[in-house]
Amino acid sequence: MRNFNFYNPTRIIFGKGTISRLGAEASKAGKKALLIYGGGSIKKNGVYQAVTASLAAAGISVVEHSGVKPNPVLRHTREAVEKARANRCEMVIAAGGGSVIDEAKAAAAGAKYGGDVWDFFTGKAEVRDALPLFTVLTIPATGSEMNSGCVITNEETKQKFSAMGTSLFPKASILDPETTMTLPKEQVANGAVDALAHLSEGYFSTTDRDAAVTDELVHALARSIIASTNRILKDPGDYNARASKMWSATLALNGLQSLGYDGVEFANHAIEHALSALYDIAHGAGLAIVIPAWLRYHLKKAGPERLEKFGLAVFGAATAEGTIRSFENWFRKIGAPAKLSDAGIPAGDIPKIAGNVMELMELWGIDCDRAAVEGILRDAA
Amino acid sequence: MRNFNFYNPTRIIFGKGTISRLGAEASKAGKKALLIYGGGSIKKNGVYQAVTASLAAAGISVVEHSGVKPNPVLRHTREAVEKARANRCEMVIAAGGGSVIDEAKAAAAGAKYGGDVWDFFTGKAEVRDALPLFTVLTIPATGSEMNSGCVITNEETKQKFSAMGTSLFPKASILDPETTMTLPKEQVANGAVDALAHLSEGYFSTTDRDAAVTDELVHALARSIIASTNRILKDPGDYNARASKMWSATLALNGLQSLGYDGVEFANHAIEHALSALYDIAHGAGLAIVIPAWLRYHLKKAGPERLEKFGLAVFGAATAEGTIRSFENWFRKIGAPAKLSDAGIPAGDIPKIAGNVMELMELWGIDCDRAAVEGILRDAA
Repeated sequence: MRNFNFYNPTRIIFGKGTISRLGAEASKAGKKALLIYGGGSIKKNGVYQAVTASLAAAGISVVEHSGVKPNPVLRHTREAVEKARANRCEMVIAAGGGSVIDEAKAAAAGAKYGGDVWDFFTGKAEVRDALPLFTVLTIPATGSEMNSGCVITNEETKQKFSAMGTSLFPKASILDPETTMTLPKEQVANGAVDALAHLSEGYFSTTDRDAAVTDELVHALARSIIASTNRILKDPGDYNARASKMWSATLALNGLQSLGYDGVEFANHAIEHALSALYDIAHGAGLAIVIPAWLRYHLKKAGPERLEKFGLAVFGAATAEGTIRSFENWFRKIGAPAKLSDAGIPAGDIPKIAGNVMELMELWGIDCDRAAVEGILRDAA
Repeated sequence: MRNFNFYNPTRIIFGKGTISRLGAEASKAGKKALLIYGGGSIKKNGVYQAVTASLAAAGISVVEHSGVKPNPVLRHTREAVEKARANRCEMVIAAGGGSVIDEAKAAAAGAKYGGDVWDFFTGKAEVRDALPLFTVLTIPATGSEMNSGCVITNEETKQKFSAMGTSLFPKASILDPETTMTLPKEQVANGAVDALAHLSEGYFSTTDRDAAVTDELVHALARSIIASTNRILKDPGDYNARASKMWSATLALNGLQSLGYDGVEFANHAIEHALSALYDIAHGAGLAIVIPAWLRYHLKKAGPERLEKFGLAVFGAATAEGTIRSFENWFRKIGAPAKLSDAGIPAGDIPKIAGNVMELMELWGIDCDRAAVEGILRDAA
C-alpha cells in the first residue's frame, strides 16, 4: 500500500428538499453570484425555480449563464469568465450535471486569473485561486461535485483536456435525488458507466496490488452502482435506488477510490476524451465502448489477477475473461453502446483518434504507446 | 435513505516516513505548540524523536504535556487547558492513540473557552472554537484522528462523557503504519473491536433499512478490519496489513459509516462507557463483552434482517444467530474478553452499571429502558 494524501473539504447536503438550503450556504460567500446551467431541463423539473427562490430569499442577486453543452466547450467557458469579471460576481453557482459543474469550476478559476482560462488545461498555468463554488447536482455520474478537477473541450483544436486545483473543490454541494427522477434512460446508463470507469481506472492500473481496504471500497461502490442502476431501470420512481446511486457516483471519484494505489493511468478516460473531442459523443457512452477493449489489453499486459478479484467480488464471475464479459453484458443490458460502430465512428478514423489520444497521454504522463492505443481502438471497432 | 450532511475537512497524510511532514503542516498555525502524549511508548518507538525533530526544523517551540491515560481523565485534561493558556500555545499536537487525541481535542477547545472544559461534556456549553489541532496517530482504533468528537472520563463522578464540534476536526492527521508495528496483541485486538463497533452501531440500530450504498461501505470496512487484523496476528511485520487496518479504522468513524441511516443509537458505546468509567477497562475490551449481548437484544427487538445481511456479507454466515456466533468466535480468536467475568466485573454490580448507562442514554437521547440495559448486561455476565 503506497503513501497517499487525502483532503476533501466539500460540504455535502444530501436528500429530499435540500435545495432550499442553497441560499444560506452561498450567503457565506457574498451577495452576487454567477449562476451556470445547461439547456434548460432544470426549468422543466423545478430545480431552477428552487435554486433562484433560495438565492433570492438569502438576498443573493444572480447573473445567469446558461447553455452549457454536455461536453462543455472553451468558447462558452470564456464567456462565463467574462461575465463573472464584468459583473464582479463573488461566487459561482452550478445547477446541473458534471458538465455544468466543470464549466463552473473553470469559470471560477478563470475569474481570478489574469490570462486565458485555457492555460490551466494545457499546463501553462496552475490553478491557485478561484471564486467560491456551490453546486446543485442533477445527474449522478462524474463526481465533479466533490472533487477538484474539471474537463473542458477546446472545440477549435479538438482537445478535451482537464485541470485540477484545491481551490476547485466546491464549498458545498447539494445532492437531492428527487432531481434525478426524470432523467432519460441513456443518462441513467451513461452515468453508471462513468462511475464504474472511475472505480476501474485505478483498480486495474495500480502496480501496488496490496491496498486491500481500497479494493474493498471499490468493490462496494461498484456493486452499489450496478444494483441501484438495475433498480432504477426497473422502477424509475424508486427514490432509495436513486439516492444510493447518487451518493455512490459521488464517492466513486472523490479520492477514496484510489488511495494507496500506484501508477493510476486513467487510460479509459484519455481514449474517451479523444472520442468526445472528435465526435461529441456522451462521455459515458464513449467509456462503455472503450472499457471492455481496454480490459482485454490489461489482461494481456498485466495478467488475470486483478480481473479475477474484481469479477468475483462484483459480478460473481469465475475468470478474468468472465469479468470482461460481465462488463459487456451489463453495459448491453442497460443500453450503453458496445462498439465504435454503434456510435457511428468509422474504423478508418482510428489513426486520427489515436493521434488525439497520444497528446493527452503525454500531458497526463500515461505510459501507453501508440500501437497499444490503436490496438484497443481496433478491438472496440 | 434519509437526508444527511457530510463534512470532513481533515487532511490525511498517510504512509511510511510521513511524520517528517508534521512541522511544515503545523507551521501554518503558528510557532508554539502544546504537545500531548501518553505514557512514553512514543519515546521507545522513535515517534517522539521524529515529532520533535520535525517541529524543531519548522521553528515550532513545544510545551509538553505527557501522561495521558488510556481512558483520558478530566483532571489531566484541565491541566492541559491550563498549560495551553499559560503558555499562549497557538496549536495543540497529539502524538498517540485515540485517548491522546481525545484529550488534545478537549484541551484545544478548553483553551478557547472561559469556563470549565467539562461543560462541553455535560451539555452546559457548546464547542464553538478550538486551537488548531494536528495529530500523529499510533493506534488504529477510535477514528478520532478524522472526526470531530472526543470522550473524557470524569474520575470523580465516574462519568465517561463525549463532546463534539466542527472546530474539533484535526487540521491534519499523520498516519504512519510503521508506528503501529510494535503494538501489543491486546491493542491490535481492542482496536479491531472498537472499529467493528463503530461500523455496527448505526448499521444495526437504523430504522431506515434501504441506504444500500452505506450498507456496502460498512460491509467493506468490516471485512477489511477483520482480514487485516488476522494478517497482523499471523505476521506482526506485515506492513500492508497494518496500513489497511489503520485506514479502515479511520474510515470506520469518519462519518461515512452511517450516512442515510436514521436513529443511530450508539448503545454499545453507552454501555461500554459505563464499564470504562467504573472499572477503567480498555474500551475495545469492554465493547467485545457488550456487542454479542447487544446483538441478541437487537435480534429480539428488531428481527433477523440486518443480522442476516451483515453476516452473509462479512462472515459468510447463513443466519442471524450464526452472525452473532461469528462475532463471538472472532473476538475469542483475537483474544478479546467475552464476558464481564473475564474482565473481573461481578454480576452483582449490574444495577450500579445500568444506573451509569442510563445517565448517558438520557444525555444521548437513546431510546433504551433500564430493564433492557440490565438484560444486556446479564446476558454478558
